[in-house]
Amino acid sequence: MTVNREIHLASRPHGWPTAENFRLVEAEVPTPGPGQLLVRNQFMSVDPYMRGRMNDVKSYVPPFALDAPLDGGAIGEVVAGEADGIAPGDTVLHGLGWREYALVDAQGARKVDPDLAPVTAYLGVLGMTGLTAYAGLLDVAAMQPGETVFVSGAAGAVGSVVGQIAKLRGAARVVGSAGSPAKVERLRALGFDAVFDYHDGPVGNSLRAAAPDGIDVYFDNVGGEHLEAAIGAMRAHGRAAICGMISQYNATEPPAAPRNLGLIIGKRITLRGFLVRDHQHLRDGFEREVAGWLREGRISYDETIVDGVANAPDAFLGLLRGENLGKMLVRL
Amino acid sequence: MTVNREIHLASRPHGWPTAENFRLVEAEVPTPGPGQLLVRNQFMSVDPYMRGRMNDVKSYVPPFALDAPLDGGAIGEVVAGEADGIAPGDTVLHGLGWREYALVDAQGARKVDPDLAPVTAYLGVLGMTGLTAYAGLLDVAAMQPGETVFVSGAAGAVGSVVGQIAKLRGAARVVGSAGSPAKVERLRALGFDAVFDYHDGPVGNSLRAAAPDGIDVYFDNVGGEHLEAAIGAMRAHGRAAICGMISQYNATEPPAAPRNLGLIIGKRITLRGFLVRDHQHLRDGFEREVAGWLREGRISYDETIVDGVANAPDAFLGLLRGENLGKMLVRL
Repeated sequence: MTVNREIHLASRPHGWPTAENFRLVEAEVPTPGPGQLLVRNQFMSVDPYMRGRMNDVKSYVPPFALDAPLDGGAIGEVVAGEADGIAPGDTVLHGLGWREYALVDAQGARKVDPDLAPVTAYLGVLGMTGLTAYAGLLDVAAMQPGETVFVSGAAGAVGSVVGQIAKLRGAARVVGSAGSPAKVERLRALGFDAVFDYHDGPVGNSLRAAAPDGIDVYFDNVGGEHLEAAIGAMRAHGRAAICGMISQYNATEPPAAPRNLGLIIGKRITLRGFLVRDHQHLRDGFEREVAGWLREGRISYDETIVDGVANAPDAFLGLLRGENLGKMLVRL
Repeated sequence: MTVNREIHLASRPHGWPTAENFRLVEAEVPTPGPGQLLVRNQFMSVDPYMRGRMNDVKSYVPPFALDAPLDGGAIGEVVAGEADGIAPGDTVLHGLGWREYALVDAQGARKVDPDLAPVTAYLGVLGMTGLTAYAGLLDVAAMQPGETVFVSGAAGAVGSVVGQIAKLRGAARVVGSAGSPAKVERLRALGFDAVFDYHDGPVGNSLRAAAPDGIDVYFDNVGGEHLEAAIGAMRAHGRAAICGMISQYNATEPPAAPRNLGLIIGKRITLRGFLVRDHQHLRDGFEREVAGWLREGRISYDETIVDGVANAPDAFLGLLRGENLGKMLVRL
């Protein structure tokens, strides 16, 4: 018998999660029934939104259960089972990461072509991550050519794609914030017009220096002080697509910022929270456009890869601390 | 010579304004030149937004100048001058209140028919106040029939119209908050489904009791704790039209609330600040619809009238303290 190693949620974190909140469990590799596929996972994604699911609160997705495997985006090869035109040898994208072998309903799997792009791209720039960037920037914030865009967490998987799409779609100026000198340097190489390290001083000051004429669009991955700075820098009719607020996910006290929300009246600012799942209708156009940019070498993506399911909790904790450049993945 | 009495800004308030920030000044009644009208003002409006203009900060309208007359919506009769088809005897709406006689550019005046509606209605339900309610509810927040609407400051000039339009346009449930038992009673008489006095406990608790299934639309006149409660009560895809934040206009410390802004992601909430001047294209439809409801007796409006230009500062201060029911006006 082959052993299936998977990561369970051992306890719910209060504040910052630690290794003790996770448990490596060995289980039997399951056998697929009718309509099911057994997938040998090759890569799994860790994402900031997973922190919210570790709390036992009602939200847009159910919380993770205690003493059961976590889940999330993953890609792998079908090794048993056949259904819906998917057969052993096929590569499929699905939602049961955090384990080496996944028993997947064929309806919840999507066959992808591993020759068209590296399989990891389907978890990143060509997958949910890329669509999040695309939909938030172009649909939720409705960026127009000639505008100035600010994106926080710009060296992350979503942020780096946001900035590049903004340039490719005609933004006049793209500003990013990141958490280390190496990230700042990398974003400059990706074509950002201005980048600052948010450790270097109040975010509001750094943003004013980077965008002296103000911003039209803010893509928020961070919340708090970053959102306050963006509201302060907004021009009239500015729009913020609120994708994440990673500064608050582990907070045990309510945030003090933004303290300037009253400005949204006179400036006629729109703040809109969104989830990528409401924007699936954009997927065909997104894939066509981004795949084209990839082929032409006009868009780049970074990956930070951690090896082994046993290290998936570390990958996740590192993500929350900003240790990744681009997409954080676990090779299984 | 007839004396023209006008109110000047004597000093800029810090925190709550006081009588000492205003000065009654006697001046000569001016003589109209070409293209100008001399208007004997009959009524002037005091509005919460004027508090912001008393600060010396760059905003969407220039701040009031020190030692010069304040301004704002007014209505009166032309007593001299003739231009653009307007002549003595006509009633005009214009932007130079806070004075008994106004020298108005004919281009900045709008002739209205005093036989169609009481002249005060043109400053309230049929004027900027009514259009603010109409545009914010139907355009900015895009209220749909069958939805649940919450409006704060509901006994004010804008709020009471918001609630009534919501019902007339098919809202399933309209909830209002107000600041006294008399206001609560009045709003029930106007057809609000549930009303609470925000002094009676945490706003979040009162709102949950008044709208146990949540809200779809929030029309914000108050900000702070009210906005936090509304975000907490919002259903998925809820929208807030941010019209005012009167709870903060006199604050000298940044607001502590809303502390739950992170919820706008999972709930996909839109918060949008607006100014009525961006929605002038709705005016014809608005006037037709609201005038019809007025004729049919399906919409009511309250007015709190203070007499004499010398008491205009008191009227304004009373407005900030919530002493008005409906539209606060000064009879000149």
